[in-house]
Amino acid sequence: MSEVTSKIQRYKCVIEYEGTHYFGWQKQANTSETIQTKIETALFNFSHQQIEIFGSGRTDAGVHALGKVAHFDFDHSHQDYEPFKILEAINAHLRDTRITVLAIEKAAPDFHARFDAKQRSYDYHILNRYARPTFNKNIITHVPYSLSLSKMQAAAEYLIGTHDLSSFRARHCQAKSPVKSIDTITITQNGDHIVFHISAKSFLHHQIRNMVGTLCHIGSNKWPVEKMSEIIAARDRRVAGPTAPPNGLFFKEIIY
Amino acid sequence: MSEVTSKIQRYKCVIEYEGTHYFGWQKQANTSETIQTKIETALFNFSHQQIEIFGSGRTDAGVHALGKVAHFDFDHSHQDYEPFKILEAINAHLRDTRITVLAIEKAAPDFHARFDAKQRSYDYHILNRYARPTFNKNIITHVPYSLSLSKMQAAAEYLIGTHDLSSFRARHCQAKSPVKSIDTITITQNGDHIVFHISAKSFLHHQIRNMVGTLCHIGSNKWPVEKMSEIIAARDRRVAGPTAPPNGLFFKEIIY
Repeated sequence: MSEVTSKIQRYKCVIEYEGTHYFGWQKQANTSETIQTKIETALFNFSHQQIEIFGSGRTDAGVHALGKVAHFDFDHSHQDYEPFKILEAINAHLRDTRITVLAIEKAAPDFHARFDAKQRSYDYHILNRYARPTFNKNIITHVPYSLSLSKMQAAAEYLIGTHDLSSFRARHCQAKSPVKSIDTITITQNGDHIVFHISAKSFLHHQIRNMVGTLCHIGSNKWPVEKMSEIIAARDRRVAGPTAPPNGLFFKEIIY
Repeated sequence: MSEVTSKIQRYKCVIEYEGTHYFGWQKQANTSETIQTKIETALFNFSHQQIEIFGSGRTDAGVHALGKVAHFDFDHSHQDYEPFKILEAINAHLRDTRITVLAIEKAAPDFHARFDAKQRSYDYHILNRYARPTFNKNIITHVPYSLSLSKMQAAAEYLIGTHDLSSFRARHCQAKSPVKSIDTITITQNGDHIVFHISAKSFLHHQIRNMVGTLCHIGSNKWPVEKMSEIIAARDRRVAGPTAPPNGLFFKEIIY
């Protein structure tokens, strides 16, 4: 009997993108302008293999990524490429996009970019000044009224730990349960630049943008710090603040 | 005799701009696409006064500013505007540009944005990684080969103090003397992001970009650290490194 060796190799890759001009990560029937479709097309264009890539999660239209992770299977039966050659080839075919593959490595056949994730982290960037942004208006959210860092930090403390976060959940969220655990929320300020750093195993749809919109209402004194406790307890989307715009949000990192 | 009161008020303003799509700061005969022209046009469009603005210095095409200072005289004989109203009006007329006036204040009649300056500082931003930039390619310079921070820091030490900097001077530089004093050069690194912070009373044309291009040759081991000493002593533009691109350069701050 001859020995049969699989020529299929699973790869894990790290991806950076500016989400501004795409309809989010996820493949869609009516448009080719999604991150997933762009990368699958680049893979096809150099390998002529129909390869599906599996992301660590979705991002909405206009949301960016610095360290998105995805996996895919590459058939080496006729294409004996080194990982670096694959990375170079994908990036060459992505050169007219705002998508860059930063790294690629061989992964175990059962590695799964989404289901194996232990922690995901996001950053949300705000330009907090009266004058409009001159640079980067697609990658920062402008808040023209003054925000109190200490009030937002105090309010964020209520969110740490395990809660029913229905008040921060988008209507069309597909998660089975509204109960989520938030590991950390750190808010830092450098001049007029405020960044929210948020980490958790997973998030509800629009959860971060809804939390940031709520924290901004507290930071601007529209609401008192303690209202955050009531908002969580209400488990009602209508009592929380508005959904912050997508442009300030970056998927930053994922830990396996 | 009646008392004659001047209705002319001098203003000092702080300006931020992305230089990418402009032919530099300075007004030019053949194009309206300069920062100075855009601001003078905005001033005219709301006040109907022909106002000349005087910048703290020129910047080249593609170079940006975070804290450029300029002064201008406004005739209040028929227009009794508060400074904030002037700022709002300029910005309203600049809304389709990449230019923002951040602050405006009344200045003494003899204040001069250029001649009164005691120190100017610039930052030069480099993305030091193999993969191309995904965001901001207009406001960062991509260096795909590895740069040694410590070697560049050591080489920069030679530049501190007063020197004949002919080796870093553009051919068409209009300064009377090639002798300049550099107060500080600090080079910092955060992940793959390297920033050069440089301050001096004034600079020769292309001086910073020529110094950065030279430091990159040393940081990449093309040249040894000690070559910086020879380059300065040579007083010859041909022995120094290439002119770094404008897109990483920001005029940051000016002290009076």
